[in-house]
Amino acid sequence: MAQYSVILSNVGSCADRFLTTGYSAPFDIKQLFERVKQIPQVTGVELIGTWHVTDKNVKEIKKYLDEHQLQLVSIIPDHFGQMKWKYGSFAAKDPAIRAEAVAHTKEMIDAGLELGGNLISLWPGQDGYDYLFQGDYIQERDWFAEGVKEVCEYRSDVKISLEYKIKEPRTHSYLSTVATSLLIAQEVGTSNVGVTIDFGHALNAYETPAESVALLKKYGNKLFHVHMNDNFRLWDDDMIVGSVHTIETLEFFYWLKKTNYDGWLSIDQYPYREDSLEAVREGVNAMENFVRLVDNMNTEEVEGMIRRGKSPEITAYLRKLLLSGS
Amino acid sequence: MAQYSVILSNVGSCADRFLTTGYSAPFDIKQLFERVKQIPQVTGVELIGTWHVTDKNVKEIKKYLDEHQLQLVSIIPDHFGQMKWKYGSFAAKDPAIRAEAVAHTKEMIDAGLELGGNLISLWPGQDGYDYLFQGDYIQERDWFAEGVKEVCEYRSDVKISLEYKIKEPRTHSYLSTVATSLLIAQEVGTSNVGVTIDFGHALNAYETPAESVALLKKYGNKLFHVHMNDNFRLWDDDMIVGSVHTIETLEFFYWLKKTNYDGWLSIDQYPYREDSLEAVREGVNAMENFVRLVDNMNTEEVEGMIRRGKSPEITAYLRKLLLSGS
Amino acid sequence: MAQYSVILSNVGSCADRFLTTGYSAPFDIKQLFERVKQIPQVTGVELIGTWHVTDKNVKEIKKYLDEHQLQLVSIIPDHFGQMKWKYGSFAAKDPAIRAEAVAHTKEMIDAGLELGGNLISLWPGQDGYDYLFQGDYIQERDWFAEGVKEVCEYRSDVKISLEYKIKEPRTHSYLSTVATSLLIAQEVGTSNVGVTIDFGHALNAYETPAESVALLKKYGNKLFHVHMNDNFRLWDDDMIVGSVHTIETLEFFYWLKKTNYDGWLSIDQYPYREDSLEAVREGVNAMENFVRLVDNMNTEEVEGMIRRGKSPEITAYLRKLLLSGS
Amino acid sequence: MAQYSVILSNVGSCADRFLTTGYSAPFDIKQLFERVKQIPQVTGVELIGTWHVTDKNVKEIKKYLDEHQLQLVSIIPDHFGQMKWKYGSFAAKDPAIRAEAVAHTKEMIDAGLELGGNLISLWPGQDGYDYLFQGDYIQERDWFAEGVKEVCEYRSDVKISLEYKIKEPRTHSYLSTVATSLLIAQEVGTSNVGVTIDFGHALNAYETPAESVALLKKYGNKLFHVHMNDNFRLWDDDMIVGSVHTIETLEFFYWLKKTNYDGWLSIDQYPYREDSLEAVREGVNAMENFVRLVDNMNTEEVEGMIRRGKSPEITAYLRKLLLSGS
Repeated sequence: MAQYSVILSNVGSCADRFLTTGYSAPFDIKQLFERVKQIPQVTGVELIGTWHVTDKNVKEIKKYLDEHQLQLVSIIPDHFGQMKWKYGSFAAKDPAIRAEAVAHTKEMIDAGLELGGNLISLWPGQDGYDYLFQGDYIQERDWFAEGVKEVCEYRSDVKISLEYKIKEPRTHSYLSTVATSLLIAQEVGTSNVGVTIDFGHALNAYETPAESVALLKKYGNKLFHVHMNDNFRLWDDDMIVGSVHTIETLEFFYWLKKTNYDGWLSIDQYPYREDSLEAVREGVNAMENFVRLVDNMNTEEVEGMIRRGKSPEITAYLRKLLLSGS
Repeated sequence: MAQYSVILSNVGSCADRFLTTGYSAPFDIKQLFERVKQIPQVTGVELIGTWHVTDKNVKEIKKYLDEHQLQLVSIIPDHFGQMKWKYGSFAAKDPAIRAEAVAHTKEMIDAGLELGGNLISLWPGQDGYDYLFQGDYIQERDWFAEGVKEVCEYRSDVKISLEYKIKEPRTHSYLSTVATSLLIAQEVGTSNVGVTIDFGHALNAYETPAESVALLKKYGNKLFHVHMNDNFRLWDDDMIVGSVHTIETLEFFYWLKKTNYDGWLSIDQYPYREDSLEAVREGVNAMENFVRLVDNMNTEEVEGMIRRGKSPEITAYLRKLLLSGS
Repeated sequence: MAQYSVILSNVGSCADRFLTTGYSAPFDIKQLFERVKQIPQVTGVELIGTWHVTDKNVKEIKKYLDEHQLQLVSIIPDHFGQMKWKYGSFAAKDPAIRAEAVAHTKEMIDAGLELGGNLISLWPGQDGYDYLFQGDYIQERDWFAEGVKEVCEYRSDVKISLEYKIKEPRTHSYLSTVATSLLIAQEVGTSNVGVTIDFGHALNAYETPAESVALLKKYGNKLFHVHMNDNFRLWDDDMIVGSVHTIETLEFFYWLKKTNYDGWLSIDQYPYREDSLEAVREGVNAMENFVRLVDNMNTEEVEGMIRRGKSPEITAYLRKLLLSGS
Repeated sequence: MAQYSVILSNVGSCADRFLTTGYSAPFDIKQLFERVKQIPQVTGVELIGTWHVTDKNVKEIKKYLDEHQLQLVSIIPDHFGQMKWKYGSFAAKDPAIRAEAVAHTKEMIDAGLELGGNLISLWPGQDGYDYLFQGDYIQERDWFAEGVKEVCEYRSDVKISLEYKIKEPRTHSYLSTVATSLLIAQEVGTSNVGVTIDFGHALNAYETPAESVALLKKYGNKLFHVHMNDNFRLWDDDMIVGSVHTIETLEFFYWLKKTNYDGWLSIDQYPYREDSLEAVREGVNAMENFVRLVDNMNTEEVEGMIRRGKSPEITAYLRKLLLSGS
């Protein structure tokens, strides 16, 4: 039974570098919770460190969660949204910053436990480099793995899930691809370290998202969490689920089922110009529709088709599935 | 009423740079015609200069066309498949090669007329450059336009349609995008010069194929011909129609109808590993399915949706259209 | 004699969508002018509408320009940095917004004249679309051209220079490539409409920047302005000049000279994490170095090399030029 | 002391899918050896299975190597150049094909040993998929690792080096990136399995080639071999070394030195239109020049610069190094 959630800020206002004050009027946290509640299928939320949750406001957040009967799905610690992270967090050249990255994560682990959550989705977006000859690729990756190991060992009952992305905000990230994430997970070596697939990030790295699911299954059953959205391949446009890559999205949900993924399906969109509530609502509707479509597929037929691997047969199958409507 | 055709070599064997002798056993021209005939919706063929048609074998080709009741849709002159074109055809630095490019095109115009065709689809794939500091971008583009103008003026009753592609076989082509093609068409200035959209080439240039149709409508109603296939955005993979870009393909057919395109819909796939006949058959089935889907769309509803431009409404519409099946 | 300038905000603090308050503490306009002044080669500035110049503060700006003996190189009207532009400016679906886009541009033309400038660099970054089936590609492009025409006709003694970019902030821009810009310039038809090449934007569209210069020369001598920066090809990273594409930058400056470009060379960088003054200073040093290198090249030798077009000869030449140092 | 080599076919004639018979007249093996010999710095060659070496012609090849005093650097078994591999080699769905892939590799190991070589550079270019829903990503990757393991265990004194590439000839390869290669190497688990970096393949995967070197150092010192060329980022253009990415190439050679790489530096270019001997000669000259430039760099200065990571300092350093010439 699929469980749907959303990153809280997704129902709010979005900004970009040209319009830093946002494309819409902002909402406060109370309003964001009320907006989430208007999407009936959504039963969980993800919160971002600093933006939504700090070590000071845990009680207030708890009240909102309870009031709206929403589960805390994960906390995404803030390793990207303050000046101090500008040269990295876990892999920063400055040891004081690396220590802060670890300390903040531990705080968020504690906050999460207090809020009934046991998943940290780590997105170390500032860890990487912009220029050639700027990074000490070995040293900084060592630091990165050490920091992640320390937070994994802090609480073995909390899952630490690494969200990879090939670039942005740096021109090159250290946690770049599904395979890089697995190398780091193996290096860390604890059982509570895993990986978050952001569908759009997978596309950006020229991964086939379904194959990324398979890789995580093959190498240790490490898919811990899923972020959904879509884009035009070359950049993390964070568009509404299913709006561009119909077949990639279908195959992704097929492989989630095939590999028995039982975590959350969470919206991670950036609806700059849209009414963000409507955009998330429609993203959830799309996920629900893909889940249903996959449930109605004849597994034996599809597996036979994959086993034979003949593209005319495959495209005929998909054509009948997708284009026979109206 | 849509008319479907195929480039003759598409039902044959394909080679690449690692397997130059081809992924399947070759077929001769007689066999290629027989294979095309097995796809009931196909009523026309496109022929390639040198590969299929020369000034010597026009009578033989005429026999095949008549025997199978196939129309000649276009001839694609050979400006890419012989050593002499390696540094270009219309834009070659060597004036003798430029003269040959023009002469061969005129021969193909004559051959086409004899075979009942009035369309030349020009793909000057070797015109461009590989290295920086290699091309004289002004001089060579001037030569290119002069050569095209000469063939356009040769027979005003034959359409000359320019097929653009951003790269391959050169790392950079002169006839690169839909807008570059329009600039050249304006420079040539005759009424019989126009543009071929290859769906995959448009994707490669980060064009939205439907928008490329619109641009050609806006700037002089210059869409003369369409080549269909699909790819993964970054390279001309020449895959089966609709196998990747479901929504882009749908929007493309929608805009063909909206702009009253009444030319051929022609398959241009490279089925390296597939049975090429099955791959083309399925490509044609896909085109037919998209045409039907567009015909069933409520134009007023869709136009209203475009006029409002709200993405949650648009994605909901497409979701219901595409994912409600099975 | 090369003239160097900078967009005023380039010596300030930069933000992105994850750190909307900026990677450094902000500077006020007075401070920005003082910072520019610390780069000795820079003799002009570009100002952005709303951010730097409004119809209210022209006198104050004039004072800063005079005080620091800086020329006004251009004004970039604000068609991107306020909520009202979220669905476009000249091509917005709402006629009131289209009217505001024109009105604001006229105000900026007036302000520019008062400040001694005769160049408007128009960057209509919000004109385009994010989703498929969202744009009426013909209608909206018609509106776009109409609006641009109106501002061009407002003052024939002021140059209106169109800065193209293939995407961002929209997933697809209408003013996307150098060739699209030329089509629009031809449609507008006035002699004061031209094109700004942003070096990085050209790279993003898989253009060779030197070839973009050549195209503008060939089709009407339409290169009005230049913005310099660098990136990793796939996104507008707005890095320091020459930090990635050494040879493309060299060839670009070569063609600027070859086509007798006599406008400004202006820095357009986004130094998120760097000290922005140091980053601009180094960008200017790089431009100066490329200009000198080109001046020292033997034109006859280079032109012969281009005429022959042999890549081993070309790469040997560039190797000796660039790698013989230290 | 750097050692330079070349893949034998690189001094011959190249074909592509549009000109399958080649852009130049072909050379026989004897001639290819004679051509290699004309490049004084080259002391080794790489041979391709089937194309150059079979279990039948080992003695003849030995004669050529001896006669020209060339070392056998590696054999690249043919897992891509015959019809039978069209659906894969080690990961083929057909068990008979998988067995052939292993058997051919063992033959090439034997041939290599007889010729004095102890390196196999494995490029399983056909292992992957073209279409969505075509690959069983777990099963086929399991087969792949099993096959590689079998050839690694066959002779522990021969190195098996995996050459990754994100695509081509399939639209998606299984051995796609440096990190994927490391995962497979770890899965195989023998000490004689390692990785070949093809400089251009790294660029295609949006890797920074120097960082790929670092990753292989960090995770088991697994860099076994290097193929050099260049391209325009998005496709494996196989151009002359250093012709596009000056700084990436410099940083790559810097990290080779920093990580004490002591293997061969081998040319892997596809000079379609060039005189192939001249193109390889110039590629080798470029490599030699980069090696010398790196040797002249002050390591302490560069390491300090990397430690500080300030981009204006870095770009100033590179500017002085590269642009002060002429």
